[in-house]
Amino acid sequence: MAAEHSRPTLKDVAQRAGVSIATASRAMADNPAVATTTRTRIQALAAEMGYLPNAQARALQSSRSNTIGIVVPSLINPYFATMVSAVQNAAEGAGLATIITNTDERPETMAASLAFLASHGVDGIICVPDEACADQLNNLHAQGMPLVLIDRELTGSPIPTVISDPQPGMDAAVSLLVEHHALPIGYLSGPLSTSSGRARLEAFQQACRNNEREPQLVFRGGFEQEQGYQGATHLLNHGARALVAGDTMMTIGVLQACHRAGLSIGEGISVIGFDNQPIFALQPRPLTVIDQQVDVMARQAFTVLHGLLTGSKTTESTQTHLVTPTILIQGDSLMKGPQP
Amino acid sequence: MAAEHSRPTLKDVAQRAGVSIATASRAMADNPAVATTTRTRIQALAAEMGYLPNAQARALQSSRSNTIGIVVPSLINPYFATMVSAVQNAAEGAGLATIITNTDERPETMAASLAFLASHGVDGIICVPDEACADQLNNLHAQGMPLVLIDRELTGSPIPTVISDPQPGMDAAVSLLVEHHALPIGYLSGPLSTSSGRARLEAFQQACRNNEREPQLVFRGGFEQEQGYQGATHLLNHGARALVAGDTMMTIGVLQACHRAGLSIGEGISVIGFDNQPIFALQPRPLTVIDQQVDVMARQAFTVLHGLLTGSKTTESTQTHLVTPTILIQGDSLMKGPQP
Repeated sequence: MAAEHSRPTLKDVAQRAGVSIATASRAMADNPAVATTTRTRIQALAAEMGYLPNAQARALQSSRSNTIGIVVPSLINPYFATMVSAVQNAAEGAGLATIITNTDERPETMAASLAFLASHGVDGIICVPDEACADQLNNLHAQGMPLVLIDRELTGSPIPTVISDPQPGMDAAVSLLVEHHALPIGYLSGPLSTSSGRARLEAFQQACRNNEREPQLVFRGGFEQEQGYQGATHLLNHGARALVAGDTMMTIGVLQACHRAGLSIGEGISVIGFDNQPIFALQPRPLTVIDQQVDVMARQAFTVLHGLLTGSKTTESTQTHLVTPTILIQGDSLMKGPQP
Repeated sequence: MAAEHSRPTLKDVAQRAGVSIATASRAMADNPAVATTTRTRIQALAAEMGYLPNAQARALQSSRSNTIGIVVPSLINPYFATMVSAVQNAAEGAGLATIITNTDERPETMAASLAFLASHGVDGIICVPDEACADQLNNLHAQGMPLVLIDRELTGSPIPTVISDPQPGMDAAVSLLVEHHALPIGYLSGPLSTSSGRARLEAFQQACRNNEREPQLVFRGGFEQEQGYQGATHLLNHGARALVAGDTMMTIGVLQACHRAGLSIGEGISVIGFDNQPIFALQPRPLTVIDQQVDVMARQAFTVLHGLLTGSKTTESTQTHLVTPTILIQGDSLMKGPQP
């Protein structure tokens, strides 16, 4: 937790490390006068103890900007736009402003965004992490920057994280398709370089096993409309009678593919979308969707961050790993299958 | 233009104002030791002369952050999400990072956002202005902050501005509806507190006159889905046989109203949307839309800002008022009317 009441001083770090204060100070400044192994050991110890270098401690303690940063991989994707707006609403309720950066799924943009936010006085950051930036994020956390991860997680990271569990929604989706005899199911998987992409694919495969079905058709793509379009077209060509999308953008791609193929959703093809976007309910037959409750996740992430900023300890703010279950919201986008 | 080569000094301001350098300095620091009227006069003169206080001048000249800010009134609205992404793409091409703030149409949030961006080292700002923040924006401009307005304009402001002209698209829309005998037309107007809301309503009324039609039905609302839904319901209840929406969110509201009323667009009702959102093409009958070419506007705004940042003078970057024409993109969302 970043905002402990009695912060360790440099003297405490030096004592625990068994070095002089001068050596500890040089080590924290990454001064090459201290041997690399010693520097690393002292820095790790300082991070473990929650030591904040003075400049950072001062910035955090006395020159609050009352502004938080939020880092997302896309704004064209309405899931992240909704997340940002929900975080911002929660922050405004607590008297905090929000600034946003969009990384377009580029780790170098995320690295630059995090560096800018950290050096330009935001009080804390909520971030959808890119695994390529794990070290930078873990370092920011170790240096005392209040930080919460959302939507994706970093394996082994101590940073507080808010994610959704795809399993309940995926189980309900696959069960419903099996009941409707809408088989084989084609699943549009997001990128396996993201924890959310991996977790949803595993959840789909587990749901198939739970329903005693063989592995179904899987397309592996990216969280983009174009990938959803290509994937849906591919899966339809391979005989899929139902499509389950792995995120909002792939769902839009599925709509596009069905549209171009002249397939009426719920008549010529069964579709289950991902995320509960208002536009998905405005199809001729409202889509059945797996809902992540992104507004709940966003509020939880802010609650945790706010706990770090204020040192308050609510049940939510002291948990370091919050998981929101997905739920299935039934529309009318499944074909009526033949009854057994 | 912000980046003049020989900037006036504080001495120049003092001489022109006929006061001592000390008084000019106190006036620029807003020191109450100088009478309010004198302070205001000196500040106005300094702004007119393009004088930059030292700290700002230094920040602008020597500690470039290579980061620009963009301030938009919504991110849930895909029009602004597209704008932000297009600005960001253009900025990345020029080696600049982008940070975003969303004001949720609240002037106090815009005021705080602008203050944060200006004081935390962005090199320039692209802003969809709120008229309640006109003074703050004009002051930032006068103080030399590179600033470009987009989508909405501030009457009489010298700040470079990029907007779209609704008239060509609106003329084509109304003409097409008249040809299809889809009368009366119900128009869903955005808020008249925005220049875009006013200009589009005027363009609609002018288009009706150009087509020698009496004033049609008008609903005055906000740029929100709920307002679009309520407006469309109201207009349908008042006998509208065609609906023209005044922005993206109101278009989504129109889709929702038609959906709930069980009206098939292009069969039971004619609809012309606003903005060319991918999702509008994925209706059972693709929507006919008035397109603002937001990506063109976003690139233009960045080109102008980049000109201010670098002092380069391309034709685009030296124009202070760029207007992109709207165009009509024909889908299949109009009923086939009786032929005369």
